[in-house]
Amino acid sequence: MTELDLVTWLRRRLPDNPTVAPVAIGDDAAVLSWQSDKQLVLTTDMLLEGSCFLIEHGFRRVGRKALAVNLSDLAAMAAEPVAAVVSLALPRSMSLSAVQELYEGMIALADEFGVAIVGGDTNSWNGPLAINVTACGRVGKHGPVLRRGAQPGDWLMITGTLGGSILGKHLDFIPRVREAHRLVENACVHAMIDVSDGLARDLHRLCEESGCGAVIFAEQVPISPAAGMLRDGRTPLEHALADGEDFELLFAVAPEDAQKMLSQQPLQDLQTPISHIGLCIPEGIYLRYADGRQVQLPPLGYVHEFG
Amino acid sequence: MTELDLVTWLRRRLPDNPTVAPVAIGDDAAVLSWQSDKQLVLTTDMLLEGSCFLIEHGFRRVGRKALAVNLSDLAAMAAEPVAAVVSLALPRSMSLSAVQELYEGMIALADEFGVAIVGGDTNSWNGPLAINVTACGRVGKHGPVLRRGAQPGDWLMITGTLGGSILGKHLDFIPRVREAHRLVENACVHAMIDVSDGLARDLHRLCEESGCGAVIFAEQVPISPAAGMLRDGRTPLEHALADGEDFELLFAVAPEDAQKMLSQQPLQDLQTPISHIGLCIPEGIYLRYADGRQVQLPPLGYVHEFG
Repeated sequence: MTELDLVTWLRRRLPDNPTVAPVAIGDDAAVLSWQSDKQLVLTTDMLLEGSCFLIEHGFRRVGRKALAVNLSDLAAMAAEPVAAVVSLALPRSMSLSAVQELYEGMIALADEFGVAIVGGDTNSWNGPLAINVTACGRVGKHGPVLRRGAQPGDWLMITGTLGGSILGKHLDFIPRVREAHRLVENACVHAMIDVSDGLARDLHRLCEESGCGAVIFAEQVPISPAAGMLRDGRTPLEHALADGEDFELLFAVAPEDAQKMLSQQPLQDLQTPISHIGLCIPEGIYLRYADGRQVQLPPLGYVHEFG
Repeated sequence: MTELDLVTWLRRRLPDNPTVAPVAIGDDAAVLSWQSDKQLVLTTDMLLEGSCFLIEHGFRRVGRKALAVNLSDLAAMAAEPVAAVVSLALPRSMSLSAVQELYEGMIALADEFGVAIVGGDTNSWNGPLAINVTACGRVGKHGPVLRRGAQPGDWLMITGTLGGSILGKHLDFIPRVREAHRLVENACVHAMIDVSDGLARDLHRLCEESGCGAVIFAEQVPISPAAGMLRDGRTPLEHALADGEDFELLFAVAPEDAQKMLSQQPLQDLQTPISHIGLCIPEGIYLRYADGRQVQLPPLGYVHEFG
């Protein structure tokens, strides 16, 4: 099997999308139409066998995840996904049908979110499977929402529930693209980040960029049922604070916008709860319990180390 | 070392480019300004240790190549490079200074071609080094130039010389971005491809897309001095036809445009010769010798196989 076999299959399998991509897959590069008043948002993510996924997870779910993590990054900017390109490093033993399964997982999600898969690069080697997806999106008048912009006094809000994603959500999560769009239409979102490496770590990142601190209210963190199913000696709250790959949106809004959100729950029809989990303060990052105890909250969570 | 150490260094090291990228590196995604009348061109390429490069080549040259192959794809579309994002899969033992060397190689080339490095993803694993770069560019009124569009009667032209790139050019080639820009300003280029997997193979691709055939004139193929230095039993011409990674531009133009080019050599100040190497015909792909012999020219060259 060669890259040509794959491209031939992809050309038949992928829907034509001349409004987005006037040049079909298989040329030296993809060509996209671009609306004049939209900024371009670009994000890239690499998934690696052994650290981000296992072959046992199934190629379809792995392919889906490779695109989904990129859509989550676009959601964090409140950008609308447009197109994606896919690079594959394939173990030499991998079959065409396995590669097609990878793509089927991506294509299903791409169709759901109106993303055109417009090109890629397929290589084989003696190493493990590696998948890189680069997605581009556009932002209109309500975006982009950056990590910086949170102010002392802002309320910290989060979509969905946290913790225990290793039990399945890290593969099957729904990127919060629609939620982000709805949020910025309903409120002035000061800062936003997707929680990919753990709430505590990504909170540190948002605060660092915004030049502020935060208090998280321990009892208000929405804990996922999965967080309570892990029997590793850590509490469900510890999992909710430190587990990576929940891909929920953490954002900061003014208290009046936050209160309106909590009463109206604008994401209810998407079945996505919004919770108020904390407060921006001038400095320091703390976890506060209902009984008044307050402790420092370090940047728990996942970090890629090398060297 | 962590990804944060690298991002901190990159933020200091990379020049601010607010006209291209109004959001600095380190957010969930990069944000680019986009001119209203330009189409967006997107390309992605993955380089893998062992098959595309060796550690012994040095991290700076490898990093440079990872960006250069993408710029070559943009050149093949006659697109102007704008920005790039970089994904790295790092062996756990790789030092921060080695990663910085990789980036220094990319940055030097990015500066030369006015490309903003606007984001990326850095991961570590137990596998070999893998580098993915996605580049975006824009095309104006003269582009994009596709692989399809060549017509019987067109002359086939090539920049530079071919063969033996393994001796160094596969790492140090200059992507033909300026040349492509000059070509489309001076002539109506019907079809174009960058020769990455061997002249014969990429000619087959161009012909396949254009729905035509071709004759290559054996004695007119510009053979690089390196092709003559390889002592592996193949002739210099065979190397020029089959060796990959020359990253020259193969293109088709009408005979009158071709003749004008040959006499004026519009790339002379870039020290890039243009040669007339063949002719588009209705069907079949042949190699013709000056003595009149003609043989079929199969798609020699490199192909990634898997499965």
